[in-house]
Amino acid sequence: MSLARFSINQMTVKQLSLPELVDACRELGVPGVGLWREPVRAHGLEATAALVRDAGLAVTTLCRGGFLTATDPAERARALDDNRAAVDEAATLGTDTLVLVSGGLPAGSKDLHGARERIADALGELGPYAAARGVRLAVEPLHPMYAADRCVVSTLAQALDLAERFPAEQVGVTVDTYHLWWDDTAPAQIARAGASGRIHSFQLADWTTPLPEGVLNGRGQIGDGAIDMREWRSYVEKAGYDGPIEVELFNDALWARDGREVLAETAQRFLAHAV
Amino acid sequence: MSLARFSINQMTVKQLSLPELVDACRELGVPGVGLWREPVRAHGLEATAALVRDAGLAVTTLCRGGFLTATDPAERARALDDNRAAVDEAATLGTDTLVLVSGGLPAGSKDLHGARERIADALGELGPYAAARGVRLAVEPLHPMYAADRCVVSTLAQALDLAERFPAEQVGVTVDTYHLWWDDTAPAQIARAGASGRIHSFQLADWTTPLPEGVLNGRGQIGDGAIDMREWRSYVEKAGYDGPIEVELFNDALWARDGREVLAETAQRFLAHAV
Repeated sequence: MSLARFSINQMTVKQLSLPELVDACRELGVPGVGLWREPVRAHGLEATAALVRDAGLAVTTLCRGGFLTATDPAERARALDDNRAAVDEAATLGTDTLVLVSGGLPAGSKDLHGARERIADALGELGPYAAARGVRLAVEPLHPMYAADRCVVSTLAQALDLAERFPAEQVGVTVDTYHLWWDDTAPAQIARAGASGRIHSFQLADWTTPLPEGVLNGRGQIGDGAIDMREWRSYVEKAGYDGPIEVELFNDALWARDGREVLAETAQRFLAHAV
Repeated sequence: MSLARFSINQMTVKQLSLPELVDACRELGVPGVGLWREPVRAHGLEATAALVRDAGLAVTTLCRGGFLTATDPAERARALDDNRAAVDEAATLGTDTLVLVSGGLPAGSKDLHGARERIADALGELGPYAAARGVRLAVEPLHPMYAADRCVVSTLAQALDLAERFPAEQVGVTVDTYHLWWDDTAPAQIARAGASGRIHSFQLADWTTPLPEGVLNGRGQIGDGAIDMREWRSYVEKAGYDGPIEVELFNDALWARDGREVLAETAQRFLAHAV
């Protein structure tokens, strides 16, 4: 029973400032963090890089790039620029993994297939740029309830269909229990992802109901919901994954509490349900 | 451009009493209705059967049976009894199709596979009972956001994996755009369903965001959302389906309006977007 592979995604305890987060990780023996671009920018990119480096914390992922489905050429160019910036930030922070949330349908569009093809085009531009800087893109399938407005990539199979067009050191996937737990084909797709070395990130969140309005901030604390975390951990491990396990919760109730207390609870839940 | 295949699911205009609904259908030239057990019971089963028969309205489905995932033996026996009653009601109402919503995980359970197997067991008991009364069971995959608390059957492939264990005249599926639109494997599964004569019901609802709290009553009016209705109609028709097309919306905003006006609008939207 150890926290050796545990990583706390910054969003889980977004009420903590970066120095508070780093302090709390040191105190609790948490060895890794997944960072988000906005709070990193607020603290300063170089300052954040120094802070985590000096604390000996591993940066397991940077969240997030993506939003690559625009049809408008200017909007598309801006998205690509922003993703190149995200790659640069990942490299500066010392993480090898940039998580990508693909983006939803453009306003008025009903064309999921076309949107997915535009993501493939963008990955073709971004993959070599990222790999040249030691960063891998990790396409994250999001739960189908986000297909219209956030991420047209809804299953691990769809994410792999995109990723496999490119070398694994450029493009892989994020496996997140919250998004995949309902899918009886996901275990086979995890094996497929592992076989080509494409599991670039593994994240945990539990599924609790009722879902809140907008369905964004209702991810359950580990152990509170319907997902067997050990089962999903066994799938990625059988597929050869032995990297960090990041807990990423978006949850209004957790955000309303003391951040250190939530981090301690999350580490305890990880030990109780995922180790 | 005709309403010949249009059917209004009673839930779409639940503010109308059964006599009001039947009147409005006659006035607007709506030839079919999908009924729900609770309002039918409130009006009286035999009285409802006479009402729709005298009006020359087709009852395209009865909603709904199901909720077959209990582990407790007494609860399971009650669910089977209730489903046999639903079959009897369908037969009395003159519809050949009972829609089944399978049920969610029992409290505390994380075992989706086991829950799906209990549904198969129940279908084995209910299928012959239904077929003997001229009623087909139509297993409805519900959107994966309902997997925990409402329906562990989340994809058309899962529904067919269950249905195909039984003769098509006993068990088939419901194809509902709201639940399947995000799934790029659904068109092939619709072809699979058609090939064995298992498309027992085809329902339309549009996908609009943001989703409301609890995600039950946010189904969009046809044409308001992300789903290309003609595309999905073409999938079922290529698969050989030429039956009724039922519009089933659960929508608080529509329920707050005049029911006749909503029915007229829904028929108009059907003509504009699905014919």
